[in-house]
This record gives sequence, structure tokens and C-alpha cells, in this order.
Amino acid sequence: MRLAVFGTGTVGQTLGAAFAGLGHEVVLGTRDPAATRAREGWSSDLPLEEYADAAAGAEVVVVAVSGGGALDALAAGGDLTGKVVLDVSNPLDFSGGFPPTLSVSNTESLAEQLQAAHPEARVVKSLNTLTAALMVAPTSLADGDHTIFVAGDDSEARATVAGLLRELGWSDIVEFEALEAARGMEMWLPLWLRLMQSFGSANFNLKLVR
Amino acid sequence: MRLAVFGTGTVGQTLGAAFAGLGHEVVLGTRDPAATRAREGWSSDLPLEEYADAAAGAEVVVVAVSGGGALDALAAGGDLTGKVVLDVSNPLDFSGGFPPTLSVSNTESLAEQLQAAHPEARVVKSLNTLTAALMVAPTSLADGDHTIFVAGDDSEARATVAGLLRELGWSDIVEFEALEAARGMEMWLPLWLRLMQSFGSANFNLKLVR
Repeated sequence: MRLAVFGTGTVGQTLGAAFAGLGHEVVLGTRDPAATRAREGWSSDLPLEEYADAAAGAEVVVVAVSGGGALDALAAGGDLTGKVVLDVSNPLDFSGGFPPTLSVSNTESLAEQLQAAHPEARVVKSLNTLTAALMVAPTSLADGDHTIFVAGDDSEARATVAGLLRELGWSDIVEFEALEAARGMEMWLPLWLRLMQSFGSANFNLKLVR
Repeated sequence: MRLAVFGTGTVGQTLGAAFAGLGHEVVLGTRDPAATRAREGWSSDLPLEEYADAAAGAEVVVVAVSGGGALDALAAGGDLTGKVVLDVSNPLDFSGGFPPTLSVSNTESLAEQLQAAHPEARVVKSLNTLTAALMVAPTSLADGDHTIFVAGDDSEARATVAGLLRELGWSDIVEFEALEAARGMEMWLPLWLRLMQSFGSANFNLKLVR
């Protein structure tokens, strides 16, 4: 499968490397490839292109930029018709310091905003509920016995994402048949951030016990 | 210990009966005891008094009314000086149908509103993250191997609540040293509600895997 991963921070690099390691064709997308390559410490071997070039030919576009940049990045993604847009971002607003608040919540979600801006694409929310290292290596914690969520209006798009999750090692996948459920997934972040502070580590996740 | 449980719905009745069963002196508080007793199906054997009478002499006041009624109920609670106020309520707004949104969230929480209205009391948030039957019988699910949160600014008040939780059978208790963490605990509800819809059951909880 060909994937475009928008975002060159920890999440984008981690996801890009993991999907490439699974044998997928991965291109990282960024606003200004030359600037990203010139960044101190930049060391990714993955192809790096402008958003629209990265997305061209990709079946899945992963939104792994910061929440504040997600709408702009996707707007620069060219023709997204029919593509699965896997939204991993969180609408964190750090303007008031730490812990951040959410810039959108409760009656809306960032994932729904992305879908509304791109009705031609099929947005699926997933992987936003935990730290990047665990996204791609769930079995490194409790033998993978913890939970990941998938929300989206399009069942085929959800199945595509769930398939990628299984490739990464996820087994406890809870699917929501409406993208609106992304509200709850994004609203998990305030508790997640408190827990990270309290544990002094991001190496945790929730397991739904039922 | 003497506890006043404000609220005569499922949560109040369940918590009241459980604490009484543990040997505590429990009084249920309600706005109009005669109206509550006249309610069809009312069958609690616990003493039932107006809020202020129920709270008089109680060391712990449990707020187990609906979120929309929490501030009014506590305002009717008389002198709360030094009392532990265990807030179990959730600020659910059903005016737009199901699933409800939150009437307060993100930059504030209902628990903080209760504390602000009653600086003379010591508010602790807990037990709002799961269904009533599991609040009082955690070991009925996965041998109790799941997580409960406690948030509050006063360490002694948190310890009092944590003690009650242990009596109920809770062992995995995560304490937050600031009531502000109640924001995250209340913002868990939108995801909880989606999960309840998806599972067709409220008999689940989260376990923090770390």
C-alpha cells in the first residue's frame, strides 16, 4: 500500500518508519521539504515531499501534524478524492501553558472538521490516544493487551485502518461506526496528559475491561 | 463514618446501600423527602432527609445527583465547613438528545465549580467514570483489576475517599493532587457513552496498563 504521512515530528517519523518497515511504500509530506531536511537532527531516510506530491498516488494519507496545523496541511494535500485520511492529530492548545486545553471539543472534533473540509475524502480517527512509540509497538506493553479505537463514517475506510493496526500488532481494536465518536477520543487527552504528568512517563495506555 | 448521600436515583441509592452495608451511618439527602417517598417504586430503607438535615453531622457528603442539579443540591446542604464533598456527578447535557454533550468542560469542570461555590468544603472527584453497579462492586469485573481515579486539592480529603474506595474493593486507585484533573475525568464521559452504545452494556471500565 502507498501511504503519505503528513508531519515530520516524532509522530510522523515514527509512523512513517513503522509502515515502511512493514513493507509499505511511504512518503513523508511536509510544507517545505528543503527546510525540513535542513533541520538540526533530521535523519529520516524516507522520501520527503511537499504535501500534494506526497499524497499523489497514496491510498492513505496520515495526518500526523500538530492539531493546529492539521486543516492547513490537509488543504495543501491536493486531490484527496476517495483517499482514506487517517487522522492521528490532537487539537491541543498550549497557549495557556501546560497542561494544554483542547481548541475544539465537546460538540465538535478536529476529525469532523477535517471531514467537513474534505467531503471527497474518507476520514478515520485512530491512534491519537497514546504516545507514538506505543502506536507502532503495542506488544511492547503488556504483550499488547490494551485497546485502540477507530472511528469513521465509511466502513471500508475503517477496515483499511484496522488492517494497518493489526499489521502494527494491535489486537484489541474497538470500532465506532461514526466519526462523531472522535469527540470522545480527542477528549481523552486531558486525562491522558494528567496521567503522563502523574506517572512521569508516556509509556501507558488504557485497556477496556469488559 | 457518617455519610450523607445527596441524590435518590440509581447512583445515590446504590452508593448509599453499599456504604451502609459496610457499616457506615448513611442518610440520603433529597430536596423533598415526602415527594421522594411517594415516588413509584421507591423502596430504600435508608433514612431520607432534606439536604441540610442529611449533611448535618456527616463527615462526607456524596454528590450523586444529576450534573445539572449538583450546584443547587450542595447549596442547600447547610454548613459544609471542613466536610469532604465526594463529587460523583457528571455535567451531562441531554438537551440535544443522545449522546449528551458536557455542560462544562475543557477549561473548567463541575467539580471545580462545586469547590469554587464552597471554599469551606474539601471537594474530591471520584467514581464518575463508570456505572453505579461497578462503583460499589469493582471485583465483580475482572477480579477488580481495573482503575479508579481520585482528584482533589486536599490530601487528607483524598485519603478519606481512597479509604472508602478500598472498602468497596478498589485496589488500582490513581490519585491526582489537583482538583483540576476532574476536567479530564469528566471529559472521559463522551468516550464512555460511545463505548456503552457500542457494547450495548455499561458493564465495563478502563484499566490503565503501565
